[in-house]
Amino acid sequence: MNTNKLGKWDVVVVGGSAAGVTAAITVHRHYPDKKVLIIRQEAKVPIPCGIPYIYGTLGDPEKNLIPDTLLEANKIEWQVAAVESIDPKAKTVASGKGIVEYDRLILATGSLPTRPPIPGIDLDGVFTVEKDVDYLRTLQKKLETAKHIVIIGGGFIGIEFADEIHKIGGKHVTVIEMEANCLNLAYDPEFCGEMEKLLVSRGIEIRTSTKVKALEGDGAVRSIRLQDGNAIDADLVILGIGSRSNADLAKASGLDLGATGGVAVDRNMRTSDPSIFACGDCTEKISFFGGHACLLKLASIAELEARIAGANLYGIRRESTGTLGVWCTAVGPLALGTAGLTETAAGKLGYKVVCSSVEGPNRHPGGMPGAAPTKLKLVFEANSGVLIGGQIRGGDSVGEMTNIIAACIQKKMTVEDIATFQLGTHPALTASPIAYHIVNAAEIADQRLRKET
Amino acid sequence: MNTNKLGKWDVVVVGGSAAGVTAAITVHRHYPDKKVLIIRQEAKVPIPCGIPYIYGTLGDPEKNLIPDTLLEANKIEWQVAAVESIDPKAKTVASGKGIVEYDRLILATGSLPTRPPIPGIDLDGVFTVEKDVDYLRTLQKKLETAKHIVIIGGGFIGIEFADEIHKIGGKHVTVIEMEANCLNLAYDPEFCGEMEKLLVSRGIEIRTSTKVKALEGDGAVRSIRLQDGNAIDADLVILGIGSRSNADLAKASGLDLGATGGVAVDRNMRTSDPSIFACGDCTEKISFFGGHACLLKLASIAELEARIAGANLYGIRRESTGTLGVWCTAVGPLALGTAGLTETAAGKLGYKVVCSSVEGPNRHPGGMPGAAPTKLKLVFEANSGVLIGGQIRGGDSVGEMTNIIAACIQKKMTVEDIATFQLGTHPALTASPIAYHIVNAAEIADQRLRKET
Repeated sequence: MNTNKLGKWDVVVVGGSAAGVTAAITVHRHYPDKKVLIIRQEAKVPIPCGIPYIYGTLGDPEKNLIPDTLLEANKIEWQVAAVESIDPKAKTVASGKGIVEYDRLILATGSLPTRPPIPGIDLDGVFTVEKDVDYLRTLQKKLETAKHIVIIGGGFIGIEFADEIHKIGGKHVTVIEMEANCLNLAYDPEFCGEMEKLLVSRGIEIRTSTKVKALEGDGAVRSIRLQDGNAIDADLVILGIGSRSNADLAKASGLDLGATGGVAVDRNMRTSDPSIFACGDCTEKISFFGGHACLLKLASIAELEARIAGANLYGIRRESTGTLGVWCTAVGPLALGTAGLTETAAGKLGYKVVCSSVEGPNRHPGGMPGAAPTKLKLVFEANSGVLIGGQIRGGDSVGEMTNIIAACIQKKMTVEDIATFQLGTHPALTASPIAYHIVNAAEIADQRLRKET
Repeated sequence: MNTNKLGKWDVVVVGGSAAGVTAAITVHRHYPDKKVLIIRQEAKVPIPCGIPYIYGTLGDPEKNLIPDTLLEANKIEWQVAAVESIDPKAKTVASGKGIVEYDRLILATGSLPTRPPIPGIDLDGVFTVEKDVDYLRTLQKKLETAKHIVIIGGGFIGIEFADEIHKIGGKHVTVIEMEANCLNLAYDPEFCGEMEKLLVSRGIEIRTSTKVKALEGDGAVRSIRLQDGNAIDADLVILGIGSRSNADLAKASGLDLGATGGVAVDRNMRTSDPSIFACGDCTEKISFFGGHACLLKLASIAELEARIAGANLYGIRRESTGTLGVWCTAVGPLALGTAGLTETAAGKLGYKVVCSSVEGPNRHPGGMPGAAPTKLKLVFEANSGVLIGGQIRGGDSVGEMTNIIAACIQKKMTVEDIATFQLGTHPALTASPIAYHIVNAAEIADQRLRKET
């Protein structure tokens, strides 16, 4: 341990990815007189959601970085070092560089990709998705010669990697998913099916309801043995099966952890130590829907938590209403978005729901350039008529339409609120006001609710 | 007057454009047992917002129609006839086709384009924007040979017509606007300026702070005399300077009119006769902001009112919260959106405001395909921190981003609500969560509000 004393900062942030950077910026915005230091492991920090796009679209990990100019512009100092321990009593952080004193500490230590204990998991050629430029470049180098790429896990990261690697050309790409559908945590089956169909049409092999028994090879991976006994050729494997909160440092410092192993925080993002806050993938998440622990990890959630934590450091003013879950993804011309609960997830949680779906172009008339067939499904709680979820499939509009649904869920809008939503439309930019998806889906749900009650 | 008795319908809707069609569909959705009849003047009904796009993009008025299949699918009958009078006591409507009895009546008679009483206004070659296929085709025919096209009025319709006509090629197109900026009712000057610059760069002449004195010519228009004495060549003139509510039928029937001449309605969209509702451009509008009468006329407002009127016919269940005003427009790669009050409009209404603007790409990293520089401005009421307006300039995301702002305004979200907005992001579809425009603009406004209080 390096006992070199590096001085005192008002605020020290451990971790420099999405949550850490946003927390530091938020501190600077709210408390411009405070000295802020980020201690991070990485010399360069990848944009987490952009990682798959390095391989087919961007071409270089260097084109997918959170720029340090963001820190400079917000007068945030930073050190590149691995934090080894925290002493909450002395209010110090020890890294390879030495010891730093703090007045307030923010933990933003992120998550670690899951490596399941299956035979062969440590063979050469088996990659996880690490937020590390050198590691990502090594993967890129290996991809140059690999022919049979298998991606284990058909979530967002899995399908985005599959499509991006397939774009390189000359590869056979397979996605293995143990559930009946890819993307099944975020979408109901009718939406998952469309994405699977598109990936197959682009030449990617999709194997759902398929479990991996072992990775086989001699030093380097050569094939994947499935639980049904069959084998698939594989000279490069990418694991995209989730991640766990990196709460090791918090645990070693005596902070409370939550039921799923994340750093326990209250609604103000404060840990069990009143001077230490936490945000991002490292924290235990509480659902917007009922408040149970949930395992969602997204950069957008991390940064929301960072804005809450950062603003609360010297005076509590923001409160989390619980994790909603808002995502989107895109493969070629097809984009999918989801906010809140799917019909399937709502059913599992015990909600009685009424759903409605509408389909139509996202321009008007449909002959306008850029028009994409767009399908939207809303999920309402049947007793209150309150919106609890929505899913969209379409073109470039999907990202922001998902955020409209997210706004409606957050403000607990009812079917009537949404049926009388005041919207703007334009031929070149949106659906027509007669056919505007969100409003029409609410009208259809309204009819169904009246029939049922 | 044709006294032929045509029978009785439960619900008769006068007018078959955006408001009338949506009202009829809404009635069918909420009261599927009711017989619904639309009486409309037009054999074919243009999509109002699509009209400019007939000339450069769509190529034919027939490609810009509200399809009658919408009526068939919702079991709505229709007659093509001009309604001549309404007898609210007898509950009958008289048209050239005969007399129809009703139980509930919905007026959706729309608006009439303004033709100011300036000399020469009735010369050949002077067009207004009529929602009439034959008229629009006549305009298209005249455009084939016209060389010097002048558009009077630099609002949405004016600039959209200008760009679409310019796309035909071989025309000199001039827009005359009497205010200092085009689009000045919907945008603050910094946004208007960008649109003007783009139009000029595409070869369109823009003359702001310019007033028309007379249209000159011998039979057909040849030039436009300005108030400063100068003249502009013009062999075709399009007037895009607004419209007035078409409330003539309502007035003749003894219904109350509002202060600005629209059909007076309560928050349930009911007229002074309890069996007659009204919606769309023909009604008097009440502002979302303070409730004063306002002159906004948009298809999206018309259809919102239609959904309120239609649902309330046999049991009041929906209430208007007042007209918000949400628009967008696009010229080539540049789209502009606005919701609620501009800084200028808020100032005129006596609001004390705090504004904030942010700028950045609508994809992340900025090198992702489709990234467009996007600028967003939010307008908050300074005492409450409640959002009252927002404007955006950018690419394809602008339409739906405008609707996110609209949702935030409708739910009276504060600067803190928006700073902790739960959003979803994706590299190929949205800005990054660190730089997400709406949230970051709220954070900046938050800093300013704290400084001021």
